[in-house]
Amino acid sequence: MPLGERGGWERSESRYCGVETDFSDDVPSLLSFNISTGGFDYVLALLMNPSYRPSLVEGKGSETQVLPVSGSDLVLAPSQWSSHVVGKISSWIDLDSEDEVLRMDSETTLKQEIAWATHLSLQACLLPTPKGTSCANYARCVNQILQGLTTLQLWLRVPLVKSDGDASEGLTDSWELWNSFRLLCEHDSKLSVALDVMSTLPSETSLGRWMGESVRAAIISTDSFLTNARGYPCLSKRHQKLIAGFFDHAAQVVVSGKPVHNLPKASDSNTEGTQRHPLRSYLDYVAYLFQKMEPLPEQERIEVLGYRDFLQAPLQPLMDNLEAQTYETFERDSTKYIQYQRAVAKALVDRVPDEKASELTTVLMVVGAGRGPLVRASLQAAEETNRKLKVYAVEKNPNAVVTLHNLVKLEGWEGIVTIISCDMRFWNASEKADILVSELLGSFGDNELSPECLDGAQRFLKPDGISIPSSYTSFIQPVTATKLYNDVKAHKDLAHFETPYVVKLHSVAKLAPSQSVFTFTHPNFSTKANNQRYKKLHFNLPSDGGSALVHGFAGYFDSVLYKDVHLGIEPTTATPNMFSWFPIFFPLRKPVEVHPDSPLEVHFWRCCGSSKVWYEWSVSSPTPTPMHNTNGRSYWVGL
Amino acid sequence: MPLGERGGWERSESRYCGVETDFSDDVPSLLSFNISTGGFDYVLALLMNPSYRPSLVEGKGSETQVLPVSGSDLVLAPSQWSSHVVGKISSWIDLDSEDEVLRMDSETTLKQEIAWATHLSLQACLLPTPKGTSCANYARCVNQILQGLTTLQLWLRVPLVKSDGDASEGLTDSWELWNSFRLLCEHDSKLSVALDVMSTLPSETSLGRWMGESVRAAIISTDSFLTNARGYPCLSKRHQKLIAGFFDHAAQVVVSGKPVHNLPKASDSNTEGTQRHPLRSYLDYVAYLFQKMEPLPEQERIEVLGYRDFLQAPLQPLMDNLEAQTYETFERDSTKYIQYQRAVAKALVDRVPDEKASELTTVLMVVGAGRGPLVRASLQAAEETNRKLKVYAVEKNPNAVVTLHNLVKLEGWEGIVTIISCDMRFWNASEKADILVSELLGSFGDNELSPECLDGAQRFLKPDGISIPSSYTSFIQPVTATKLYNDVKAHKDLAHFETPYVVKLHSVAKLAPSQSVFTFTHPNFSTKANNQRYKKLHFNLPSDGGSALVHGFAGYFDSVLYKDVHLGIEPTTATPNMFSWFPIFFPLRKPVEVHPDSPLEVHFWRCCGSSKVWYEWSVSSPTPTPMHNTNGRSYWVGL
Repeated sequence: MPLGERGGWERSESRYCGVETDFSDDVPSLLSFNISTGGFDYVLALLMNPSYRPSLVEGKGSETQVLPVSGSDLVLAPSQWSSHVVGKISSWIDLDSEDEVLRMDSETTLKQEIAWATHLSLQACLLPTPKGTSCANYARCVNQILQGLTTLQLWLRVPLVKSDGDASEGLTDSWELWNSFRLLCEHDSKLSVALDVMSTLPSETSLGRWMGESVRAAIISTDSFLTNARGYPCLSKRHQKLIAGFFDHAAQVVVSGKPVHNLPKASDSNTEGTQRHPLRSYLDYVAYLFQKMEPLPEQERIEVLGYRDFLQAPLQPLMDNLEAQTYETFERDSTKYIQYQRAVAKALVDRVPDEKASELTTVLMVVGAGRGPLVRASLQAAEETNRKLKVYAVEKNPNAVVTLHNLVKLEGWEGIVTIISCDMRFWNASEKADILVSELLGSFGDNELSPECLDGAQRFLKPDGISIPSSYTSFIQPVTATKLYNDVKAHKDLAHFETPYVVKLHSVAKLAPSQSVFTFTHPNFSTKANNQRYKKLHFNLPSDGGSALVHGFAGYFDSVLYKDVHLGIEPTTATPNMFSWFPIFFPLRKPVEVHPDSPLEVHFWRCCGSSKVWYEWSVSSPTPTPMHNTNGRSYWVGL
Repeated sequence: MPLGERGGWERSESRYCGVETDFSDDVPSLLSFNISTGGFDYVLALLMNPSYRPSLVEGKGSETQVLPVSGSDLVLAPSQWSSHVVGKISSWIDLDSEDEVLRMDSETTLKQEIAWATHLSLQACLLPTPKGTSCANYARCVNQILQGLTTLQLWLRVPLVKSDGDASEGLTDSWELWNSFRLLCEHDSKLSVALDVMSTLPSETSLGRWMGESVRAAIISTDSFLTNARGYPCLSKRHQKLIAGFFDHAAQVVVSGKPVHNLPKASDSNTEGTQRHPLRSYLDYVAYLFQKMEPLPEQERIEVLGYRDFLQAPLQPLMDNLEAQTYETFERDSTKYIQYQRAVAKALVDRVPDEKASELTTVLMVVGAGRGPLVRASLQAAEETNRKLKVYAVEKNPNAVVTLHNLVKLEGWEGIVTIISCDMRFWNASEKADILVSELLGSFGDNELSPECLDGAQRFLKPDGISIPSSYTSFIQPVTATKLYNDVKAHKDLAHFETPYVVKLHSVAKLAPSQSVFTFTHPNFSTKANNQRYKKLHFNLPSDGGSALVHGFAGYFDSVLYKDVHLGIEPTTATPNMFSWFPIFFPLRKPVEVHPDSPLEVHFWRCCGSSKVWYEWSVSSPTPTPMHNTNGRSYWVGL
């Protein structure tokens, strides 16, 4: 029975809760007890008798041998096996043991158990934690297995540990164990991690790294629970926050261990015939945490289904015409147009003092007018400030011009608004503008060629005229983003690793604060101006978090529309309630491991050719990556 | 309002019916009249004023020009545009005209109209029929457009004509026009055909070719309807059959033209306030045809959704172990096991005369016993014939052996059935068998390596022993299969064109009767026997059907289990109600056009290496294709 219905969360994988069980050769009873009676959604159960060792089987290799599995495939319906059982691979296996018999037995058993799980169409199997610090043979064997799997997922069990002690004390940062294992398995998307949550937690920074990894399960031992005033199990505030984070990232909770809380006896009238599962109070507490999650806003509920971590190619509005439905979506972003209206109002007041408001007419040009939202915002600013306005609406898309014409007719703007069906770069204006208004910004600011378009349009701006926006800046920050990396990798070509994507970032760990990259200011009448840029950046990981893997860079923009009116998506200064832009993601062909004591040095270039503009990027330290997108061979924006 | 709910058909695209309309600049009224009042699902409507010619526009190139479209995008909601309007490109365009002005005007208009349709997110546009016999420039321009489309489909309008007259009379076979056009556009999957159904129809053979093409719509002129006794429109029997075929292939009907039937006046009491659409009686007749379709059997209803024309890689049961769910599906095919039971029963009776039934025990070995269905069928045959039986169940999959053990225990077969957990090729049997029973056949008979497995197993068959099956033969026939070809092509590599697929053939035109390819007989104790094969085949297209494009070959098998008991999927002799095998499809890298007067010469090879078996195939006439799958480089079955 899933953890509950909760404002959008009921669609998340995290609503299922499992329980780790002992070996049983009576799987139907195991299910009946833990699922029907206990209320858990699935059992994490051993598939084979734990006393089994291939080398000890008598008459080894005999034709009458039968695997010591927990029961025939027919004891459950196929759908029960796949919904209610996650296979637990024998904990005794040690594929990196010095003992050759143990090592061979381990490999044989691992392969037999995975084959049995595949036979049953299980959804996942839990692999035991590597025994020592080396896991090369274990990873090789798992990698062999992964090549043959189609639907079965493997979860590597790893304790959630990060101590500051030195390495001689054994495992100090379990993330490094996970990182080695998954690098040896080449980031296989069927391999993910199940974290054993202990009573002591590492630092916040350290925990944050896991949000960019593919964590499928958080296994919480009953020992890690505290006891509340009424004797019931509960979790510390820090544990609660961690579990909420896992829920939000589609990881499931598994309860493990023996009951360690002496619960108040149920009243006599209730005990009769009621067989209560010994771990029920732990499950109830997990369900309580799930149900206490903030409901998702309506916008996010759609995103959970469709947009989170979904890679999209950026728009190319200069080369391609937008479609009606795209215009419609963007026009609904009222926050954005309110900011524009505020900026135009301030510019109008600066331009025309109150005493001249009735005589001076300001000439405002909307370049890239689309279906008219900036025309409307500008006219509302004029009305609000009581300024006289003459508007030119310049638009290159002939299909949007049809709508503009209808809009002008419908609103009775014929005397005020002139529609120009033309590319702003080629229009011969009959007069010059006081204010030039545009919305040509992409997720990375200049990536939809706002600089080139406005450079072309400023020839019909008066020398003292105003551009709205007056400047914009791009930002990047390094991220761990396993899912995005794997989605890029799935294309199996270089081009997709050299393309930035527009994406609603979610399963991402932000490893350092963002830093500014390129800035453009308008108008810019300098004869030396050009739009090529180069920036070198240094990022330092916080010292208390441990190492992390950088899969690429999250990109944002912030824009000054006019004076103190800004608009942007850089996380620390983002305009609230605006949905027109998702961040951008620049991937790395080979992820780079970064330590807190060695900074990450990154280079970004904006390159301009006669017919296209593109970015190149690379990392030079701690490990150099190849240059990405040389000559714009994989990604470019057409002029 | 869709044509109706009908036993599974309500899931088909063919349930929507359109109407071709005149140009209107009041699209909301056009929809209200034809959809709300008329009952049609969509209109096939001109998007731009038919009097528009770009070269005649005054002030050409002016910045104040507005496209003469049928209305602003805002007159309908986005969902209305896309659900209820199919764009009709101006009929006057002629991109292969000798008149350069007309040619340039045509290209400009075509591109503007497609851009407008894209702006509106329409699902499809109808391209007018090419004016002359040449369509190269038209196809070039459409091909340019196709490169930029993502969701919009283009339907090329073509009359359904095939006369026996000579070419000097003009168009004799409209399929050739379509074939040229789509070959010039490289089989783009966004380009399909809309057929104008005339009052006279070509031969059945000729019509059959279209069932392998991507026909999206059948446009029926009111002129093509007959009049029934009560004065209502109806269609000839041949037209009815054709339309049923289109419904079955997800093509939609569009009614076109002016009403030509004088319907009996409605009674006075009914006319008041009822505005009846003039084409309503035609729509009602089309709906009647739709509702009269045979309901789909339950099995087919699932197939319509999931399996029809869906390419699957063939199983490799020798290399891979089947999963429990796969066993379960195949075990449910009772027809197959009834045939096996009949074959075993006949063999037992032949082997042991009635008078010795109580003393002689027949040794029967099931090689590849899986989870036991052939063991059960054999024991039932023994019971039915009163023969004594000893069974060895040989199975290499250790996971299925678990189930077999449980089955034997549950059924109390311990004294009769011995389970051997071993690959039949390597088992050292302690005694020899009278009867060897196996089910190792693939869709193409020998393609899952039954010959190699049984050759290995026959060493423990008595010299006079019986193999069930005793022989099997593969068959192929040439097919037009646009959808399958495009699905193979979508992978953009050679390997997928050199792989046979298991597929429930549906949108396929079978161009000639199937012919046998390879036969294998068991047991085969000849020392010269080997399993390599080569076969050259000649197929002749029927003389009354016109040319056709061969995209590849449909493959089948038929098997003699024992004497007169057979099992197979070759269409003319297929065992009814059996679902274990879909046909196989061998694609061609380059489709071959075949004329009725020049036969198709095809070569098939079965090649054997030390660790794999594979097919190679090619066409040598009328046009040679490259050899497919040389050395098994793209597809092979592992030993």
